[in-house]
Amino acid sequence: MHSNVPRVKVISSEGVPTSHLPFSPPLQVDDWVFVSGQASVDAAGQIVHDTFEGEFRRSMDNLKAVLQGAGLELRHVVQLRSYVDSPKDLPEYNRLYREYFSEPFPARTTLVGCLGGTIKYEVDVTAYTKKR
Amino acid sequence: MHSNVPRVKVISSEGVPTSHLPFSPPLQVDDWVFVSGQASVDAAGQIVHDTFEGEFRRSMDNLKAVLQGAGLELRHVVQLRSYVDSPKDLPEYNRLYREYFSEPFPARTTLVGCLGGTIKYEVDVTAYTKKR
Amino acid sequence: MHSNVPRVKVISSEGVPTSHLPFSPPLQVDDWVFVSGQASVDAAGQIVHDTFEGEFRRSMDNLKAVLQGAGLELRHVVQLRSYVDSPKDLPEYNRLYREYFSEPFPARTTLVGCLGGTIKYEVDVTAYTKKR
Repeated sequence: MHSNVPRVKVISSEGVPTSHLPFSPPLQVDDWVFVSGQASVDAAGQIVHDTFEGEFRRSMDNLKAVLQGAGLELRHVVQLRSYVDSPKDLPEYNRLYREYFSEPFPARTTLVGCLGGTIKYEVDVTAYTKKR
Repeated sequence: MHSNVPRVKVISSEGVPTSHLPFSPPLQVDDWVFVSGQASVDAAGQIVHDTFEGEFRRSMDNLKAVLQGAGLELRHVVQLRSYVDSPKDLPEYNRLYREYFSEPFPARTTLVGCLGGTIKYEVDVTAYTKKR
Repeated sequence: MHSNVPRVKVISSEGVPTSHLPFSPPLQVDDWVFVSGQASVDAAGQIVHDTFEGEFRRSMDNLKAVLQGAGLELRHVVQLRSYVDSPKDLPEYNRLYREYFSEPFPARTTLVGCLGGTIKYEVDVTAYTKKR
């Protein structure tokens, strides 16, 4: 009946901001979890403008909430993409980043700009669910 | 003989624009299909400048043609990255997007700019071939 | 004891630039290797400003060193993302690219800008370790 449907699972959990936009916050596919871009938004999905630190921490809180729905934590992230709006925030970005991640760090690419000027930070990740 | 060659498959199919550029439109690796950035180009790979809607629809048509070569449809896309040149096109982007994708939506990140000012939209995806 | 630790492996090898920044140059997860953004940096991780060609070649040398630690070469790359700071360098980028990659080419997306204006090129990749 559903023989042509991909084996994916949309994960929802408490604390994940709702959104009227068409994306799955996380989509689980076999052993992998793909997480949509997370930014500084409140529970209703509205942007919360803040300092870089405030936006970064709120993005990470949202990322953690999304991962939690799959039973995962930040340490299960294997690849991460960061979008930092202003190059002047890069040192603070790297300093704050170490509060959330530790070795073995995810593979990471950091891009500057690309956010349309409305937010200061966004992050998306790929996580891996298998434990050893 | 080919013992050190990765197990990948370049997929071609009717309707996929040709290009003189060095990329595989889709590369299949085990159960995954990686699709190169698709934009508003014609069958010969030449850019077709159009309204945002025109460029978006042509990009999606090209994406569908690429996926079709692997026996896949848009609903097999699990992760998608959109590049929208101008922030003013974001509302139309989200409206049009819903014509092509439905729940469970792919994980998605949308970036603004990054296209060098020559095109209005580009999309790349990862798709998953296993069916349930 | 480590039952909740993801099965990842940080790979290091000779020739990989050291960095004070929080990322794993490559992270291996089962059959996949995720490589962090590679740019024109020296062995100590310091940016080497150069012509586009010089920066591109140094980025590729660093990418090759990172892959080598996992026993891989450029031909094991299945998906590649290029960030070219200036659109005027795109023709040279495509010309040089063919010196490093051959068919079957990786799936590829090329973005313009997003580098904060300090470097001319950056590349990140996903590679696949299984051989046929």
